[in-house]
Amino acid sequence: MVAEHPPTGAVLALDIGGTKTAAGLFGQDGDLLRVVRAPTPVGAGPQALFDLVAALLRDVAGYSAVSGIGVGCGGPMYWPAGIVSPLNIPDWVDFPLREALASVYHGVPVRVHNDAVCVAVAEHWRGVGVGTRNLLGMVVSTGVGGGLVLDGRLVSGATGNAGHIGHVVVDVDGPACACGGRGCLEAVASGPNLVRWASDQGWSPAPGGTWTGESLAASAAAGHPVALAAFDRAGSALGTAIASAVQLTDVEVVAVGGGLAGAGDLLFAPLARQYARHAGLGFARRPRVAPASLGVHAGLVGAAALVLAGDVYWTGS
Amino acid sequence: MVAEHPPTGAVLALDIGGTKTAAGLFGQDGDLLRVVRAPTPVGAGPQALFDLVAALLRDVAGYSAVSGIGVGCGGPMYWPAGIVSPLNIPDWVDFPLREALASVYHGVPVRVHNDAVCVAVAEHWRGVGVGTRNLLGMVVSTGVGGGLVLDGRLVSGATGNAGHIGHVVVDVDGPACACGGRGCLEAVASGPNLVRWASDQGWSPAPGGTWTGESLAASAAAGHPVALAAFDRAGSALGTAIASAVQLTDVEVVAVGGGLAGAGDLLFAPLARQYARHAGLGFARRPRVAPASLGVHAGLVGAAALVLAGDVYWTGS
Repeated sequence: MVAEHPPTGAVLALDIGGTKTAAGLFGQDGDLLRVVRAPTPVGAGPQALFDLVAALLRDVAGYSAVSGIGVGCGGPMYWPAGIVSPLNIPDWVDFPLREALASVYHGVPVRVHNDAVCVAVAEHWRGVGVGTRNLLGMVVSTGVGGGLVLDGRLVSGATGNAGHIGHVVVDVDGPACACGGRGCLEAVASGPNLVRWASDQGWSPAPGGTWTGESLAASAAAGHPVALAAFDRAGSALGTAIASAVQLTDVEVVAVGGGLAGAGDLLFAPLARQYARHAGLGFARRPRVAPASLGVHAGLVGAAALVLAGDVYWTGS
Repeated sequence: MVAEHPPTGAVLALDIGGTKTAAGLFGQDGDLLRVVRAPTPVGAGPQALFDLVAALLRDVAGYSAVSGIGVGCGGPMYWPAGIVSPLNIPDWVDFPLREALASVYHGVPVRVHNDAVCVAVAEHWRGVGVGTRNLLGMVVSTGVGGGLVLDGRLVSGATGNAGHIGHVVVDVDGPACACGGRGCLEAVASGPNLVRWASDQGWSPAPGGTWTGESLAASAAAGHPVALAAFDRAGSALGTAIASAVQLTDVEVVAVGGGLAGAGDLLFAPLARQYARHAGLGFARRPRVAPASLGVHAGLVGAAALVLAGDVYWTGS
């Protein structure tokens, strides 16, 4: 690890998701100065999608001098090369995102990481993990992802995939997972899998509702027994996986974000109950498991930190 | 992390276990020059036990100039303070091992870590993980412990407890674990728990055998169906836990040591089968899961590395 000087100009950040793409301009102190959002186009082809991303960056940068670009993007990807094949962005298959950005912005660092890793970084840098040296950050949404800060530094692992808590096993004979495994946390607790399970048990959205975790949460809040059971099941799975992860990594805080975390106690109460059942060792009873605090901007903030605090959050070349 | 100069004299290492204690003298190049072993006395009291340890160190050091001491000891412990309460050494409860050694050897670094962490360090430094930057090292024995090297550096976590793979959950409604949790890997796959399960199913040692994993392995090798089922159960639990750990940490090699690993394919075949069932993501299919290679000296070698390669393996104060 080579100590580096902080950038001297503004930093651009990108958060590229299957539905929306956001671009942000950050000052050297890490403040978000300006942000623009646009729907992520579908079916336009790889170059058109990149052109949109580049246009968003131009818009948000204005006349600022840019000293670096940090990007959070859905996986999988080759890391640190930043060659991305996001599951929910079919237009990009092995798209050389890092190289394409570097060819537009010459001579400044361009750093691409998993979007869930960026959320974890953000929560450590500016969220519920400030002042700690060991954090697990999670996104519970369409998928279940995460990132790990250990001993004061982001951990990327051999291929940039450290933090994939969605594929910790919570039920050895549980449902098949899209990853090819079985009984993964994501197979039980992601929004779509949660809704599917509830539907199989006879739940359907209330009038005006949709087949989403939000509608399911509304039903649960109204006392629908299947919806309540669904959140109990997902929260319990989260509690088991987090207990396993904490006992393996000895983090002091777990930040749980993503759309489903908005369900609040519906999710966090069974999570805490199951966590307590599995986390027996003294050190594992100490961590704080808390809702993530940065909301919709978390991905951008973490992407900016890849550049603005690269000595802590960037271990790639 | 402060870069440090390598020590200029020989380094002493200690591996303190419930049954035996070993002391080793290492050259600056990491070669083990001399080793002595003695039974760990039981019931003598904390000071008498420490006096034995100090005598072993004097014996092995001879007239060598000593530039540091590395120690692996059973947990739990306060880390990095090195105040130890080993589960299987009842004479030491909150014993200030690091301070006691420092008062004998003035002015040189004294570093104490979990014994299973030292085995993981050894396998990374001089064993099956040489040349990698990400390793999970495990000891499957009376307990199930481990350590993690990620992004090229030993990870200790908030309280020095990172690496406790023995308490990753493999069976959500599984047996109660000594830790207070439920369904932990250790509750299923440690030697004593494996023997207990086999005994409950009707196994008993062959004539001349004992109630140990070794005798159980001998029965399994002879085709005893309960003994075979016991190893299948333990190997499967290991495969599940390792899949969870790999997907969370993205290591490239997993070194499995400890007495039970001596059972070879009896353990590693079901391990590999269950690992393949749970490790669906591409990056999780790549790691090598291999028997540890350093055998009985692994703990000493890792303890020495805490000093001889402290910039990689020591993050404490």
